[in-house]
Amino acid sequence: MLYDGERLDDLHRDGLRIIQNPSKFCFGMDAVLLSDFAKVHKGQRHLDLCTGNGIVPILLCAKSKGESFFGIEIQKEMAEMATRSVSLNNLQGKVKIICGDIRLLTFAQKFDVVTANPPYMPIGGGAQSPTGANAIARHEIMCSLDDVVLAASQSLVPKGRFYMVHRPSRLADIFASFNAHRFAPKILQLVQSKAGQPPNLVLLMAIKDGGTGLDMPAPIIVYDNCGSYTDELKRIYYE
Amino acid sequence: MLYDGERLDDLHRDGLRIIQNPSKFCFGMDAVLLSDFAKVHKGQRHLDLCTGNGIVPILLCAKSKGESFFGIEIQKEMAEMATRSVSLNNLQGKVKIICGDIRLLTFAQKFDVVTANPPYMPIGGGAQSPTGANAIARHEIMCSLDDVVLAASQSLVPKGRFYMVHRPSRLADIFASFNAHRFAPKILQLVQSKAGQPPNLVLLMAIKDGGTGLDMPAPIIVYDNCGSYTDELKRIYYE
Repeated sequence: MLYDGERLDDLHRDGLRIIQNPSKFCFGMDAVLLSDFAKVHKGQRHLDLCTGNGIVPILLCAKSKGESFFGIEIQKEMAEMATRSVSLNNLQGKVKIICGDIRLLTFAQKFDVVTANPPYMPIGGGAQSPTGANAIARHEIMCSLDDVVLAASQSLVPKGRFYMVHRPSRLADIFASFNAHRFAPKILQLVQSKAGQPPNLVLLMAIKDGGTGLDMPAPIIVYDNCGSYTDELKRIYYE
Repeated sequence: MLYDGERLDDLHRDGLRIIQNPSKFCFGMDAVLLSDFAKVHKGQRHLDLCTGNGIVPILLCAKSKGESFFGIEIQKEMAEMATRSVSLNNLQGKVKIICGDIRLLTFAQKFDVVTANPPYMPIGGGAQSPTGANAIARHEIMCSLDDVVLAASQSLVPKGRFYMVHRPSRLADIFASFNAHRFAPKILQLVQSKAGQPPNLVLLMAIKDGGTGLDMPAPIIVYDNCGSYTDELKRIYYE
């Protein structure tokens, strides 16, 4: 089940495990935060864009009562690795990984919930990752922010919910893209590494054809002053 | 100098004082935060939209090396009260109050910096203030958010800076309006009453025809756990 260079990581939830390859891309805290922030209600259909190794649909399947969880990934090797993780956890009945380009999506049946942990960096922005798989996961090489938001809009039912994690520096681009693709942002949740520090992640929930009014909860603080996870992070990771 | 119902408040800065009428509208912490957040450099021209009793141009005149500070206010009685506060502080040479409608602004000479502490509530939103002056200061009766942003854009030189304080719930509207009127948001500063609480104010800086990239500093925390001002707030109020 494991190829050269791969490892098996415990997700500390229902005995779930996931295959990762550190030389390509490993999921980070952003994917875990997104899986906690996103809500898939009983019987709902979920789609994760840019799913990578499938961490978000696998975690959401464990944490929610949704009916089905799809993940789409453009990189063939990553999609194949995600498919093996789904099998490893015996989730084939609920989680499906599709290898494909989100810019070419057409689904006969729309989704109630879409999530995305897309590449954060514009092409040319930030330190370029050394390897191909990492570069595609981190930089907007295969899809731009606007491609992701458009794909989410096209995949959702009216009033469907889109959950995304991104960088604070891209917030203006995110709001512009939401505006262009019929999304009303409803929740903006900041994440700070420590209290008193600038936010380093933003979690957004937007409703397709939703109304006005944005809720901003208290920022999530990841580490306490001793460098340990805060109670909130322990809840998100382990409960 | 004082009319019936008015009082004279000490601004704790260079002996400055301001006339207020509690039955109409008194400035709040938002105006003080905005005056600290906005930067007027040496020799620059500043305009404050919806200036009310003139608190923002009077404070900015004291805190910066700008050349001139204009405040525009639609309510005749408020503009007249602001003018008396300017005279009381002997600032007539630098601070000018104009009674007028920001929707009809035309200035022969544009400004380097525009500030606004506009009405926060859409018409019909929030608890309607009982009196006329208060209602106009708090609700978008005489000008909408989009009117304010458009007036700022039309009043600024290219690359001019617009500073605004508003409510987090209006952030999506603010970004949409910025986008429509050539503003690139560059700083989004949240303000929380206490650590661990949701933000209750947002301070924004946008540049007319500016580039991409938004900076989000650590949130300003107003009160410590004992209910006293934090050191940051003491600095903003008294230094």
